Amino acid sequence: MSLLVVGSVAYDEVETPFGKCEKMLGGSASHFSISASFFTHVDIVAVVGGDFTDGEVFESRGIGTRDVERISEGKTFRWGGRYEYDLNVAKTLYTDLNVFADFRPKLSEESKHSRLVFLGNLQPDLQRGVREQMPDAELVALDTMNLWIDHTRDSLVRTIKGVDVVIINDAEARQLTAIPNLIKAAREILSWGPKALIIKRGEYGAALFTPDSYFAIPAYPLESVFDPTGAGDTFAGGFMGYLSSQETLDESAMRRAMIFGSVMASFNVEEFGTERVKRLTHAEINDRFHAFKRMTHFDEIPFEAKV
Amino acid sequence: MSLLVVGSVAYDEVETPFGKCEKMLGGSASHFSISASFFTHVDIVAVVGGDFTDGEVFESRGIGTRDVERISEGKTFRWGGRYEYDLNVAKTLYTDLNVFADFRPKLSEESKHSRLVFLGNLQPDLQRGVREQMPDAELVALDTMNLWIDHTRDSLVRTIKGVDVVIINDAEARQLTAIPNLIKAAREILSWGPKALIIKRGEYGAALFTPDSYFAIPAYPLESVFDPTGAGDTFAGGFMGYLSSQETLDESAMRRAMIFGSVMASFNVEEFGTERVKRLTHAEINDRFHAFKRMTHFDEIPFEAKV
Repeated sequence: MSLLVVGSVAYDEVETPFGKCEKMLGGSASHFSISASFFTHVDIVAVVGGDFTDGEVFESRGIGTRDVERISEGKTFRWGGRYEYDLNVAKTLYTDLNVFADFRPKLSEESKHSRLVFLGNLQPDLQRGVREQMPDAELVALDTMNLWIDHTRDSLVRTIKGVDVVIINDAEARQLTAIPNLIKAAREILSWGPKALIIKRGEYGAALFTPDSYFAIPAYPLESVFDPTGAGDTFAGGFMGYLSSQETLDESAMRRAMIFGSVMASFNVEEFGTERVKRLTHAEINDRFHAFKRMTHFDEIPFEAKV
Repeated sequence: MSLLVVGSVAYDEVETPFGKCEKMLGGSASHFSISASFFTHVDIVAVVGGDFTDGEVFESRGIGTRDVERISEGKTFRWGGRYEYDLNVAKTLYTDLNVFADFRPKLSEESKHSRLVFLGNLQPDLQRGVREQMPDAELVALDTMNLWIDHTRDSLVRTIKGVDVVIINDAEARQLTAIPNLIKAAREILSWGPKALIIKRGEYGAALFTPDSYFAIPAYPLESVFDPTGAGDTFAGGFMGYLSSQETLDESAMRRAMIFGSVMASFNVEEFGTERVKRLTHAEINDRFHAFKRMTHFDEIPFEAKV
């Protein structure tokens, strides 16, 4: 079992109504890999600057960093954002791409033979370039963002045609297809080729669409959300990490993977950055998995007409 | 088994991007009772004007109308609304309360002994007045709207303290408690006394809160929503109607009732007014119940750490 993630490693500065953190480990590859590391071995392809000093977090989680390029004379990607009480929407204060601006993913020979790949939010040409170097991957998943839908939609659609699973949020699905109805938008995206589409809905949960099935789950009910940064990548990490631990990547496995993704995301938002997730235990993860079963269970006793 | 609903009977004029209907049967008691009639016997307490000519619909569904007051010299409540492509929000064009303006629910002796009661969206003093006439009811549920939260919040809270189940949407729960986090808002409402709180979330489904459990379901995935008017009351009708058919009103029954409520609401939005629901069959209802089971099922195989 082996899983590769291509994405960003960053330092985030985040302000929420509950507190402020001036510098914490962030970026899609960080959140994804720490989450996935509870389920499988995961390797990162990313770039950092000479100022990066948090390699120990990856090491302690057994995450492979042989493809993390270090540009000593450059600085690590930095992002600053603020959340108001509506924690669904981040207000970006600044984005300093730094060494990430010229990121060209370089895959070692071992990485090219990973069984599963997650293409984190990147320019879609770069995502496609990675995918083309890994023709034997059993399952390739992709995330994206509104920026690429706005500016490079054609390239993004071409990239989507070459992957197995698309993981985006509902606004992105509507924007990508220009179809307001989410179910129709999902059918459109699946018609381009992917075997599965996952729609993340924040506090409303997530849904899994395949050409002939639909699966939907609520979010874990949290009385306080502290910092939502990285929740989407943490979800993807739990999803892909669990799949990577399974021999058969069928729909049954994907449904369970959705639950594990939601479990990991629910922990992520409880503290700043990767703080909560990195010290999780398997018992805590499994407890919350069971909670999902309890909160979605109903007996199948159909109504018998009394007439 | 007997169920009573107190609410409005109205004529609606509705315009959606897909069509227009100048006059159709509407109102909370109409949508509720037609939906509930597939599961139980239901009686209506309401008022209509001399222009009301749709009694046949109630008759054909076996709905009791002995407490429907007819004011010959008055006109039936009329509401006009328009939906844009975002079908979640109705724009009210006009509200002519007519005979509904002076509605004072009058319950016959038989009605006072109904086992279950649904207090449709009414001024909360009136709702409380009905509840006080029915001290022996086994389960009393209530709906409300932003108007009553804005203008008569104290009375509404007092009414909520006297009922068993509150059925509202997420914006109303937040407004009622002034708590942005839905889970905390739900805890607050339950602390006032009700045994259960149902939060309707439109296209995102619904959730059931009790003092010690949480249950959440997605909405049935619809590729086209034609007219959402009455979906909330149709949900409540399926929920209360199914409960009324059950001997034991425990949490297991309430969870199944949530599914039947969602099933009925999903049919309601497929056509104008009560058109789709009134000609449903039990087979169609049960088929969609089974679909809910399929779209929420996952195997409970927790993750075993490979370490």
